[in-house]
Amino acid sequence: MVDVNAKELEDLAKEIFKSAGSSDEESEIVAGHLVRANLAGHDSHGVIRISQYIKNVREGLTIPRAEFKVVKETPIIAVVDGHWGFGQVLTKKGVELAVKKASDSGISAVAIRNCNHIGRVGDYTSITLENDMIGFIVTNSRSLVAPFGGVDRVISTNPICVGIPSGRDTPFLLDMATSIHAEGKIRVRRNRNEKVPDGWLIDKDGNPTNEPSDFYDGGAILPLGADVGYKGMGLGLLVDFLAGALTEAGCSSSEEYRTVGGSNGTFIIVINISHFTSPTEFKRRVNEVITNTKNSRRQKDVKEILVPGEPEEINKKKRLEDGIEIEETTWKSIVTIAEEYGIDVDKFIDNN
Amino acid sequence: MVDVNAKELEDLAKEIFKSAGSSDEESEIVAGHLVRANLAGHDSHGVIRISQYIKNVREGLTIPRAEFKVVKETPIIAVVDGHWGFGQVLTKKGVELAVKKASDSGISAVAIRNCNHIGRVGDYTSITLENDMIGFIVTNSRSLVAPFGGVDRVISTNPICVGIPSGRDTPFLLDMATSIHAEGKIRVRRNRNEKVPDGWLIDKDGNPTNEPSDFYDGGAILPLGADVGYKGMGLGLLVDFLAGALTEAGCSSSEEYRTVGGSNGTFIIVINISHFTSPTEFKRRVNEVITNTKNSRRQKDVKEILVPGEPEEINKKKRLEDGIEIEETTWKSIVTIAEEYGIDVDKFIDNN
Repeated sequence: MVDVNAKELEDLAKEIFKSAGSSDEESEIVAGHLVRANLAGHDSHGVIRISQYIKNVREGLTIPRAEFKVVKETPIIAVVDGHWGFGQVLTKKGVELAVKKASDSGISAVAIRNCNHIGRVGDYTSITLENDMIGFIVTNSRSLVAPFGGVDRVISTNPICVGIPSGRDTPFLLDMATSIHAEGKIRVRRNRNEKVPDGWLIDKDGNPTNEPSDFYDGGAILPLGADVGYKGMGLGLLVDFLAGALTEAGCSSSEEYRTVGGSNGTFIIVINISHFTSPTEFKRRVNEVITNTKNSRRQKDVKEILVPGEPEEINKKKRLEDGIEIEETTWKSIVTIAEEYGIDVDKFIDNN
Repeated sequence: MVDVNAKELEDLAKEIFKSAGSSDEESEIVAGHLVRANLAGHDSHGVIRISQYIKNVREGLTIPRAEFKVVKETPIIAVVDGHWGFGQVLTKKGVELAVKKASDSGISAVAIRNCNHIGRVGDYTSITLENDMIGFIVTNSRSLVAPFGGVDRVISTNPICVGIPSGRDTPFLLDMATSIHAEGKIRVRRNRNEKVPDGWLIDKDGNPTNEPSDFYDGGAILPLGADVGYKGMGLGLLVDFLAGALTEAGCSSSEEYRTVGGSNGTFIIVINISHFTSPTEFKRRVNEVITNTKNSRRQKDVKEILVPGEPEEINKKKRLEDGIEIEETTWKSIVTIAEEYGIDVDKFIDNN
């Protein structure tokens, strides 16, 4: 493991994306996003992605400086063709556009297609929160999840993300896969030679399994909900219909879905609180509920009740101080790419 | 058990609400709603509610012919004070208003407060579906659900309902409690002297229990998700923030929540598909995904993969033919109320 300072890591990542053809602004957006994912504790969406992103650029699957092209627009909604640019750039611009529209309209929506991996969805609602707006973002991807009662991969892990101003230091930030877990959690167990708990996976024949490798051998992730997995399946399908069908990006299991390089069709709704109620009163209400939730008596062995958004804040504080732990393989892949671009890693990382 | 024809039952219910002071239109809306809930198989939201609704009218908690008062409005959004009218009437009008707005705006939202029990949330999206629009409805209620890791009732069973045009005979209709189950399912088990499965309930001290009565003795329902119940809790809180805080109805655990008679703060979003993509193409995509889902290989002992909306349609077909089974207690309570209003039940029900 290597401990790297967040700021230094971001500067290095930025230099790599610049070398790959991105503008200053684009490099900053993508690098900042990846490092913030690490800070939040979502390492599967952090700098581990650099090698994949650069590979995609080299293969022409991701286009640096791609145009954020609004193909349909009213003062309230927009449809964007992302021309296979970096998902981080497209989504950030999409949310900014939705916030701008919602300032006047009260509610707005932006649909984005031809969009690469958007990373950690929970990163984008900061823009809405600063403006006292609620941000709702869903995105689809390739099929990894079986329907409730089914065996084949039909749905993706389709996350739902909602950020809500809370009047607290930590906003309410729900950022959840609609499957039992995102694929990254299974990958981590596999890399550590650990089993997964019951209820996560089935193998390629539909038998329950605790072996992560069975998933990569054609198995499937199960939908959220266990015995009531029809709920998780329903939420997953809903995300596919918004992010895949409404955006024209293509649904996960469809003929038109771009499997090579993946596609993250993305659908954004922004709600401007002030058009409905006083933002101050709204936040007072949210804060009261969160306080009540956290003050509930606790079940045995539960130390603290955490509401969505809090685990990420705890990780961030810790990692800003201690540095970000990066496993050797990931660090090596980053150093290799940097060297390929003639970047002197020591110039960026103090204790390399 | 009594088997009653749906049409006859609806006419009788309509007569009861008219006698309680509702207009023809209002009686028709409420009676039709309750009977359709029975047809869909959601008996806990069907005519079993008549006695409670009439009690609420008599106690002044529900106001027949209440004004649907739009207190804030733009071409895109509206905030409605329901003046404690029937939730069914207010929600139907709210969705109709949202559909009208979304016709021009592409996306719209309506917030309703001072609103009584809205019944089966899945009933209202039919209006959006007829117009090739997506309907999203959430509503909150009194606290019944513990936070993840907690013991006290803080959140309600807060349902999320989304109806999506599917290009099939049966629309995609997700209508799910964000707790493991709605309270009605626990009530049914209690009434039948049956236990509930693991993972549904905790008792008043936070211990897992299979006894439905422990819930009514101060226990709590668990959030959706079992080991990942932070997801169900997150969805439940989200619904509370939209339906309780944004509408000003009050959140479930808040000081301002109207516990007596209950309050269903309701938040509606309608998305007009044609502003984003061709509705025909959209439905083709949704239909393709549903077909892929249903055609997945099945796990052992699974006869058919059902997508959200299908179980209700199956029930409806059966019950339209066979009649609606009503348990003796419920039937007696309806007959008693009818008689109190001097209604001749035999005039309405053929085989009473």
